[in-house]
Amino acid sequence: MDLALEEARDAARRGEVPVGAVVSDARGRVLARAGNRVEEWRDPGAHAEMLALHEAARALGDKHLPGCTLTVTLEPCPMCAAAASLFRVRRVVFGAYDPKSGGVEHGARVFAHPQCHHAPEVVGGVREAENAALLREFFAGLRGP
Amino acid sequence: MDLALEEARDAARRGEVPVGAVVSDARGRVLARAGNRVEEWRDPGAHAEMLALHEAARALGDKHLPGCTLTVTLEPCPMCAAAASLFRVRRVVFGAYDPKSGGVEHGARVFAHPQCHHAPEVVGGVREAENAALLREFFAGLRGP
Repeated sequence: MDLALEEARDAARRGEVPVGAVVSDARGRVLARAGNRVEEWRDPGAHAEMLALHEAARALGDKHLPGCTLTVTLEPCPMCAAAASLFRVRRVVFGAYDPKSGGVEHGARVFAHPQCHHAPEVVGGVREAENAALLREFFAGLRGP
Repeated sequence: MDLALEEARDAARRGEVPVGAVVSDARGRVLARAGNRVEEWRDPGAHAEMLALHEAARALGDKHLPGCTLTVTLEPCPMCAAAASLFRVRRVVFGAYDPKSGGVEHGARVFAHPQCHHAPEVVGGVREAENAALLREFFAGLRGP
């Protein structure tokens, strides 16, 4: 989660919503790390998780990421949750809960339906306060003093 | 839907699950067309819809696709449905329903939650029989005679 937080802080410095993601393998080796690039790339699909999943698969030279963990500072949206399932990661670890836009513990609850053919293990709320504070500070900064 | 079906048939010829997608603008002009590239690119995220959405945004030079229609031969999965929302397409038109893996009318029902901040209009079951037959024939071919 330290690396994911670092990616999130870097994203904030680029003017992005501060979300960072890391994919590590079964031995804990980091395969990929990424921050949000939505504004820079003008691509609403360029969420940190999508970039990290794609980079990890390239690094492994495999279509799937069995045994891997996706660690992300914020609860994934439905797009990213569904991608984590399609890439067959073993576990999704996330920081802050996202009642407004999340798709794992809220709303679409992507892993909770029989239409989801691979449901990763989920560990939510990891270093929740720290992860939530980073987002809160970013949005407070946008609104100005 | 003719163009989407053409893309789906091309995908089948490449050994992909036959799904094709087209993004057109408010005047019906085609901005992007794509077929499934999951096997070719060894990328489980390379669904026809994702490729067409990204290509259309590049073609428009915009982050969003307001007024646009995503036409796809099969009910989108949750990843693609959520991406259509993030790209802010006005309408999603799909062919065959996908009770097994769909995320619009089944399972996650991505557009049906308050966590979905832009719910496109949905028109499902367009030329359903033809679209479903294409998929059925493909999978029957895989199983052999």
